[in-house]
Amino acid sequence: FFFAALYVARRCPIIEQTPGHQLSVLTMQCLTAKVAALGRSLSGRLRSAQRLNSTFRRNAITDQWVVFSEGRRDRPTQTKPQGLKVKTSDGPPHDPKCPFCPGDEDSKTPPALLELKDAQGDWQLRIIPNKYPAVVPVARASEIWTELTTDPNVGSSTLLIERPAIGYHEVVVESPIHNLPTACAGRDAVERLLRGWHLRGNQIHEADPSMRVMLYFKNQGTVAGASLLHPHSQLVSLPFVPRHMSIRQQRHLDFFTRFGVSVFQKNIEEEIEARDRNQPHRIVDQNEHFVAYIPFAAVSPFNLWIMPLYEQAHYIKTEEPELQSLATILERSLRRLHGVLEEPDYNMVLRSAPLPGRHLQRAYNASAFSRWHIQITPRLGAGALAGFELGSGMFSNSNLPENDAAQLRDWLGEMRKPTSCPVVSATFCS
Amino acid sequence: FFFAALYVARRCPIIEQTPGHQLSVLTMQCLTAKVAALGRSLSGRLRSAQRLNSTFRRNAITDQWVVFSEGRRDRPTQTKPQGLKVKTSDGPPHDPKCPFCPGDEDSKTPPALLELKDAQGDWQLRIIPNKYPAVVPVARASEIWTELTTDPNVGSSTLLIERPAIGYHEVVVESPIHNLPTACAGRDAVERLLRGWHLRGNQIHEADPSMRVMLYFKNQGTVAGASLLHPHSQLVSLPFVPRHMSIRQQRHLDFFTRFGVSVFQKNIEEEIEARDRNQPHRIVDQNEHFVAYIPFAAVSPFNLWIMPLYEQAHYIKTEEPELQSLATILERSLRRLHGVLEEPDYNMVLRSAPLPGRHLQRAYNASAFSRWHIQITPRLGAGALAGFELGSGMFSNSNLPENDAAQLRDWLGEMRKPTSCPVVSATFCS
Repeated sequence: FFFAALYVARRCPIIEQTPGHQLSVLTMQCLTAKVAALGRSLSGRLRSAQRLNSTFRRNAITDQWVVFSEGRRDRPTQTKPQGLKVKTSDGPPHDPKCPFCPGDEDSKTPPALLELKDAQGDWQLRIIPNKYPAVVPVARASEIWTELTTDPNVGSSTLLIERPAIGYHEVVVESPIHNLPTACAGRDAVERLLRGWHLRGNQIHEADPSMRVMLYFKNQGTVAGASLLHPHSQLVSLPFVPRHMSIRQQRHLDFFTRFGVSVFQKNIEEEIEARDRNQPHRIVDQNEHFVAYIPFAAVSPFNLWIMPLYEQAHYIKTEEPELQSLATILERSLRRLHGVLEEPDYNMVLRSAPLPGRHLQRAYNASAFSRWHIQITPRLGAGALAGFELGSGMFSNSNLPENDAAQLRDWLGEMRKPTSCPVVSATFCS
Repeated sequence: FFFAALYVARRCPIIEQTPGHQLSVLTMQCLTAKVAALGRSLSGRLRSAQRLNSTFRRNAITDQWVVFSEGRRDRPTQTKPQGLKVKTSDGPPHDPKCPFCPGDEDSKTPPALLELKDAQGDWQLRIIPNKYPAVVPVARASEIWTELTTDPNVGSSTLLIERPAIGYHEVVVESPIHNLPTACAGRDAVERLLRGWHLRGNQIHEADPSMRVMLYFKNQGTVAGASLLHPHSQLVSLPFVPRHMSIRQQRHLDFFTRFGVSVFQKNIEEEIEARDRNQPHRIVDQNEHFVAYIPFAAVSPFNLWIMPLYEQAHYIKTEEPELQSLATILERSLRRLHGVLEEPDYNMVLRSAPLPGRHLQRAYNASAFSRWHIQITPRLGAGALAGFELGSGMFSNSNLPENDAAQLRDWLGEMRKPTSCPVVSATFCS
């Protein structure tokens, strides 16, 4: 309690109130004071967030939220930040020093939150809390974060706004095999990954309705920001919608309101029409439920998107058989990229609309105008975030999407001699 | 003319018009048709832009404009995209193969647009057209681009929107010395760079009032996206304001309207107040006209901003003695970063408000709410654009800005033995 009192005293010198915003907008200071006044023991929770040195801060000039987590500097690393490219497939099938390899799971990693096992009872996929989290879960997050969907800057006497970094940050260990890139692991492994994201996303959403955003992503390789080589991906859940995402959402609603069709629907319809008329198009693959294509204005070479053919804003609402259909097209897409670009480093992001919570998002039927989708961005150079892009928010691409798409489409992976996938893949894992 | 007619015919199948937008909004199609109808010879211009394979395309889903310029793939490169870090200071003072080194300027590079010379008549700084431009100038750009400040998506029957990539893309060769990083080149060299940006920016603005945005940036090193090692920076001018920048501008106006103070002013006032009260702050340096600080919510380690202490939206309006003051604080800042981070790769971006043209921007007195400033982003890892950042638009930073600022502030560069700057710097260049 001493710490809590000290905390409140330090943080709440003056609370400036803007007319009309007295009740609806609470700053970090008021939140702390309010919760303390209600007699709840917030101190432990806040202190645990502080002990981890994990906080959200907002830059009022750029409107960007930043997560500060000094603990993440202690992460182990098998890659070299500015060094030579290290491929996953160059490693051994089992590395006794790797924290994700089977053997000493309990001592090397936190207990699993979810496991998918084979018939023998051996895990094939494990989801564990990130040992070096950017955000950490706390009890009663919803009460603390309810107000954050409104602009936290309004009514504050200072721009120096900081909040405990609440959320979920989990790691999906995709395979027991150390040197098996996801692109080589086969369709079943990709289905497990998608199922893991889906199951765990639903678990978090049900257990903690305060979470507004569910992010799924995979950083493959050094250039893409990965620190460990063992095939893994991540899941991050946030208690508020970053402005970047709400602006995007709002634009999609605007488009729908104006044209009566979702911009996603219109986009893939135009691509499919162009293909059916034998005009230049950018479709790489298509099946019953999904289309894989390179956008007309792709931000970088071989930037591949996978989009559902039907209305669906939230990935966690996807059902069978769509999930299986997705596994098929995603695995084939990863294999194409792996084959054409020779095991590239890449980022894969699954973008899903903000979750309908108790507040703002409930006003929308997001599926009418928004659509979850996957974006795969091979990292073929450093160019994606050079001065031009930083300064303008525009991108510069030296590859034409039509050509990239044709190259991926025409890749005869099945008919060539085996690619650079490690031999273990075919027998060991599926 | 045949090509122009073909172009118009191919591009203008149907022009869909939205009520209320018939006159104010013109698509690429109508623009082309309109200009052709007026009897002007657009064909040559359009074809020259097409010959360069340089076009703007807009992604309707993400609202991002992308410049496609296949010619840029032919750029010479002295760096390795995913290879070991190559330092500028590791090179020789003169490299006969380098296109930017003195000797065969006329045969290796296009004629200079601007040169700053020493007393002997030797150039110290050269501004030349980029040989591999993302955008290219055309005559009468203003007529073609006048309408582009409005949403080009409205009234269009297709999302697949493409336009010739008009603009200016120039290279500033900062020094005749091949291996002298800007951070080592001394105060006068930094003043020449700033003066080059300033003079050339003014020239373009006066010669071509259709340019809406002036971007100044420097990519230092492989990780930051540089392809050549010789000290150089760039200048890009665009005929429209990318949405990213107009949203930013609009937010700054909103803040000013609500609080009666510019968010830039408020931000540096809070930092200065904190420092003066001996509270934690993030100021690294300050002089008569500028403050150098790390933002409270810096997106990455050692992300340094240099901000004028006075109202000024447009860099090209800066006058003496501010320009000299800026050279002093920028040179010291680059030296600090060079010393503490051991010649890091970095991006430096000078952000300036959209230029007041004939249309939208003229409605604002941008200096009241906006402010040009410099952002230096050391590239210490690949982390700045990994899956989390791509997915959320948020950033994750493992360094606290207070600590980074203190480290830069406390750097005793003058009192230590010489840093890794090449010895040539002191005698050769100033």
